[in-house]
Amino acid sequence: MTKDKNDAPQNPTACLIIIGNEVLSGRTQDANLAYLAQGLNDVGVRLAEARVIPDVEAIIVKTLNQCRKAHTYVFTTGGIGATHDDITAEAVAKAFGRPLLCDARAVKALEEHYGDRLNDARLKMAEMPEGAELIDNPVSHAPGFHIGNVYVFAGVPKIMQAMFDGVKHTLKGGAVWRARSLSTDLTEGVIAGEMALLQDDHKDVEIGSYPHFKDGRLGVALVVRGADAGAIDETVAALEAMVRAHDGAVFEDPP
Amino acid sequence: MTKDKNDAPQNPTACLIIIGNEVLSGRTQDANLAYLAQGLNDVGVRLAEARVIPDVEAIIVKTLNQCRKAHTYVFTTGGIGATHDDITAEAVAKAFGRPLLCDARAVKALEEHYGDRLNDARLKMAEMPEGAELIDNPVSHAPGFHIGNVYVFAGVPKIMQAMFDGVKHTLKGGAVWRARSLSTDLTEGVIAGEMALLQDDHKDVEIGSYPHFKDGRLGVALVVRGADAGAIDETVAALEAMVRAHDGAVFEDPP
Repeated sequence: MTKDKNDAPQNPTACLIIIGNEVLSGRTQDANLAYLAQGLNDVGVRLAEARVIPDVEAIIVKTLNQCRKAHTYVFTTGGIGATHDDITAEAVAKAFGRPLLCDARAVKALEEHYGDRLNDARLKMAEMPEGAELIDNPVSHAPGFHIGNVYVFAGVPKIMQAMFDGVKHTLKGGAVWRARSLSTDLTEGVIAGEMALLQDDHKDVEIGSYPHFKDGRLGVALVVRGADAGAIDETVAALEAMVRAHDGAVFEDPP
Repeated sequence: MTKDKNDAPQNPTACLIIIGNEVLSGRTQDANLAYLAQGLNDVGVRLAEARVIPDVEAIIVKTLNQCRKAHTYVFTTGGIGATHDDITAEAVAKAFGRPLLCDARAVKALEEHYGDRLNDARLKMAEMPEGAELIDNPVSHAPGFHIGNVYVFAGVPKIMQAMFDGVKHTLKGGAVWRARSLSTDLTEGVIAGEMALLQDDHKDVEIGSYPHFKDGRLGVALVVRGADAGAIDETVAALEAMVRAHDGAVFEDPP
């Protein structure tokens, strides 16, 4: 990668805050980061940072306030359910210095779904900071919300994905970055020198080199990213020629 | 979770810094966090935070310096290969204000493995901050290193796991936290109130409630964590009785 491009990014940036002891304990594998990152790529927003933090109010408030100043958009996942360990909505309210209210529109959505089964615990899922806008939840009906540049999603991947899909096209992005990749059975040590020269010659794109271990041997995936499809194609062709000149196998799809 | 326990944790804490545009772009799914977290649990160290950051030197240096002050241990993954975009070792040297040197022990390990195929690009993998200690790499031979409380691992999971396993038992941990869990087909809204009372009655443990979406319907996994196996067993039994009182199914293993 060229450092200048990353030090002065043209596109709006985003930060994902994954709130959850279940991820930090190793019990649950996060599945939301990759989905969010790919969706943001589609609309020209760059995921610049992600953090995984515990269900501790002071840490959530501090992290939110750091990240919402540093990035165009902040997304949170986790901690908006009905139980005692779901403290995200309250922490977001504290970060914004707003009261936590039981939102009438959210109560209505829950009433329509739960009917007589709507109880105090479920009503907790209608609490959000004053002035928040609802994010629709077509899966399990308890809405997410956004306030300022912060978007608050559920942690369950199917629900998170539906919530993100509902707001994705309201985000204001920049140029859409694309990527193409090729894989080879050569190792990085063989091609590193020439790849660095190729990066110097193709400054409009970012060349990433990602080793992998497959069937007992190392290989590498070369990924070219940028906003200019022509420059990407040209760089991929140059990388492919370089790999073939070393008698390396070329696989179109990375493993 | 009880807030007091998390605000004043007894155990040493750790932070994982995942360095890699390939994770932030959504191309690669991180597989190191869960492995590290579970291994740290075994030795009484609590993974308190994780961050995913891009391959940008200034960001790596700043993040390292924040995290190594805030936590007992810091682990990094990614960016220690042979190519132009591998800048972790140099960033760690800058964070510690030490020169980056070609380490004689690392050169020897690479010479033994590569022989005549050792070139300038591969020698880059022997560079580390002055005063660093090597971390053995039984998979692909280019070592990791640690300096102060920072442990620098490769990003390829098989290599990262071997490096972590090599240093794991040198870490100084506290009480080992254990976890037991049960799953039910009840939803959080049904059991949230009673679960909060159970948490109040069992302050030595942390009760987590994690909804999941399976076969088209919501269910929940209840996880009890703590250092006292007796208190965990007692709490799990109380949760199970509570679920059964609501005619909920109980599954021993979480999905």
